[in-house]
Amino acid sequence: MRTVDLIQRKRDGGELAPEEIEFLVEGYTSGDIPDYQMSAFLMAVFFSGMSDREVSRLTECMLRSGDTVDLSAIAGVKVDKHSTGGVGDKTSFIAAPLAAAAGVVVPMMSGRALGHTGGTLDKLEAIPGFRTNLTAEEFTTQLAELGLCFIGQTDRLAPADRKLYALRDVTATVESIPLISSSIMSKKLAEGVDALVLDVKVGSGAFMKKQVDARRLAQTMVGIGRRMDKKVQALITDMNQPLGYAVGNALEIMEASQTLQNAGPADLTKLSIELAARMIFLGKKSATLEEARHMAEHHLVDGSGYKKFKQVVAAQGGNPQALDKFELLPNATGMREVASPRAGYVSSINAADIGTASNMIGAGRDKKEDAIDPAVGIILEVKTGEKVDAGSVLCRLYYTKEDRVEEAAGMVEDAFRISSQKPEERELILEVVG
Amino acid sequence: MRTVDLIQRKRDGGELAPEEIEFLVEGYTSGDIPDYQMSAFLMAVFFSGMSDREVSRLTECMLRSGDTVDLSAIAGVKVDKHSTGGVGDKTSFIAAPLAAAAGVVVPMMSGRALGHTGGTLDKLEAIPGFRTNLTAEEFTTQLAELGLCFIGQTDRLAPADRKLYALRDVTATVESIPLISSSIMSKKLAEGVDALVLDVKVGSGAFMKKQVDARRLAQTMVGIGRRMDKKVQALITDMNQPLGYAVGNALEIMEASQTLQNAGPADLTKLSIELAARMIFLGKKSATLEEARHMAEHHLVDGSGYKKFKQVVAAQGGNPQALDKFELLPNATGMREVASPRAGYVSSINAADIGTASNMIGAGRDKKEDAIDPAVGIILEVKTGEKVDAGSVLCRLYYTKEDRVEEAAGMVEDAFRISSQKPEERELILEVVG
Repeated sequence: MRTVDLIQRKRDGGELAPEEIEFLVEGYTSGDIPDYQMSAFLMAVFFSGMSDREVSRLTECMLRSGDTVDLSAIAGVKVDKHSTGGVGDKTSFIAAPLAAAAGVVVPMMSGRALGHTGGTLDKLEAIPGFRTNLTAEEFTTQLAELGLCFIGQTDRLAPADRKLYALRDVTATVESIPLISSSIMSKKLAEGVDALVLDVKVGSGAFMKKQVDARRLAQTMVGIGRRMDKKVQALITDMNQPLGYAVGNALEIMEASQTLQNAGPADLTKLSIELAARMIFLGKKSATLEEARHMAEHHLVDGSGYKKFKQVVAAQGGNPQALDKFELLPNATGMREVASPRAGYVSSINAADIGTASNMIGAGRDKKEDAIDPAVGIILEVKTGEKVDAGSVLCRLYYTKEDRVEEAAGMVEDAFRISSQKPEERELILEVVG
Repeated sequence: MRTVDLIQRKRDGGELAPEEIEFLVEGYTSGDIPDYQMSAFLMAVFFSGMSDREVSRLTECMLRSGDTVDLSAIAGVKVDKHSTGGVGDKTSFIAAPLAAAAGVVVPMMSGRALGHTGGTLDKLEAIPGFRTNLTAEEFTTQLAELGLCFIGQTDRLAPADRKLYALRDVTATVESIPLISSSIMSKKLAEGVDALVLDVKVGSGAFMKKQVDARRLAQTMVGIGRRMDKKVQALITDMNQPLGYAVGNALEIMEASQTLQNAGPADLTKLSIELAARMIFLGKKSATLEEARHMAEHHLVDGSGYKKFKQVVAAQGGNPQALDKFELLPNATGMREVASPRAGYVSSINAADIGTASNMIGAGRDKKEDAIDPAVGIILEVKTGEKVDAGSVLCRLYYTKEDRVEEAAGMVEDAFRISSQKPEERELILEVVG
């Protein structure tokens, strides 16, 4: 088997056999296949795509390249939730406690912020004392006790994916549906879950700008799950404006806390309940999806989801009081309002620009080494469809350093489109796949 | 300027500015841009193509990456001829002497055999004593005296192309029209020629299998020449069967010698005269192309082309007598006939398979390090359109080692397609571009 022949076959639109995919992944991980051949192969995949069989084998090879977590000692169905990344997306802190309150075991392995989107671990670490670097034993003990634990992915999970991702990042081969799918699924399946609920974001603030691409991504990931005997469902959800009102680490924790107390924004509440319901249903804690929705709502209204989250925060070293007393969370020192230049209706809010502006004042990182400022971020005052007057506040920037505040404010102002006509209402949950 | 952004732009079908192409070629040649980014870029070019402006700038950057030959001290228009590679293609040994006999200065810089096609240098070195590794001074002196010299391309010509070609070879990015065009043209233009006649082969024995691709390749190379103020004409010629009857180094020298004595195969004679005529016309030795054709024919019939070739052979250390007395050339020790399995018409002869079979018995090399056997090869007895009986000889394999003779004979037999109907006659010269 010669690597160059496999590259050529993929280039010419052919399908590789399972053992050929294996040869490539193992050869690359071991260093036998050099970067320059793999990057040419990845670019060929970008253009030629992959069959379901190929993408499943690729996922399996990456999954097997490292450790896999064995959660079989813990009773019950283990269900994780994964979002492809959006702006203001704090559903994990709401849906996971609601599902856990319903008896689902939720091993939440998450990543950090990169690019314009936020990271679950960074947001959690805004809570004073919260630790995400648990040992494997701490992780399984907490899971068994509380049914929910938040942890970072270790370097030993799917190392082939990490090596490939680093190469894709510098060779313009990130935006490929088979490569994105296999990257996500290899890590998720290495976590030892039985089922997975995916939130595939689409729109200005998502990696997928078009619904047709989001659908293909969702279908590919659901297909990988099916071939590996894991139940996977995907929601395709709108990311043409931030989810909720808060963007930024501590700010999002505050909004999640309010939402768990049934006092959160409508869109965030709705999506969190739907995600929790899918987790409950896949976790076999309800007979029907409808029943699962009622359970999720019930655990929101009766406060048991909130209580679960507080228990988890305490178990992981965080101060649960900070979820009630926001002054215990990191707080910004400065505030800058952004006003509407004219009267009209908010017709769209470019979510990627809001995310980028928030990062600009310190909420995110451009490079992996960058430090983030948990206190800073942006609070929207209005959302798409709302009426504004000239001079009324569109949003507020919360900052601790003035460096790039004006630049960020300009970007935020441009992110709001104000038009004279009321825009058509947009669905939040666009499709279900799987 | 970030390399990854340039890869992405090309991937997405965008055009790179001249300075961006320069950044890539210079960065890659100096080692600042790693192989893995360049190979991803090359694969993106394979799929997205290049504009005329891009391909011209790429050619120019590769050309300028090394030495360029200055032939301005030699009077007259300098015209080279280049073939994209075929099987049994020995036109250089006929067309170049005919053009030189007409007064054109012909600096012939050639390559070696690789893949299923033969190499001009390897064929010439079948003549005992013939040297192709001349010094620059020997080269220019001979050009001034005889108007024709055969030499190998030095490593100092277009080193960026050599580095890129080595990468393309192992990353399945060879078969790209902009990359092939710029590779050929950068080397040819570095030779300091004023004009160039291209023979773009199309068919089973050529790299281009389809005429539409050959046309695009020809148009791209002619376009590069035009943008660099060089006169370039391209013939698109049929390579669906070997040219002439002889395939193999010494065997091809013999056939070229016969053709220069006006006793060669019709197809080889016809194409050689047309190529010589184009060289004479671009070399400004005739007022019209028609007049150039007459001159080429005249120099064939009166033996002045043959005389010129003998002078060149002698000047480069070869024994010119070997062109008359073929026993002075390396001769094979064994012969194996391949007979027709049935009666009918030869409807096609897969030229690539004939070339591969010839290499199998030692005429070519698979890897650059391989040694070749100048004596061996294949002589066709019939060509497309001819009638054969069951058992009549299709061709003869000439060999010195028996190792792979039977395998080669099987391949050769399969290369001939015998059908009951006489096939339609095929044009040899299909198109002229430029």
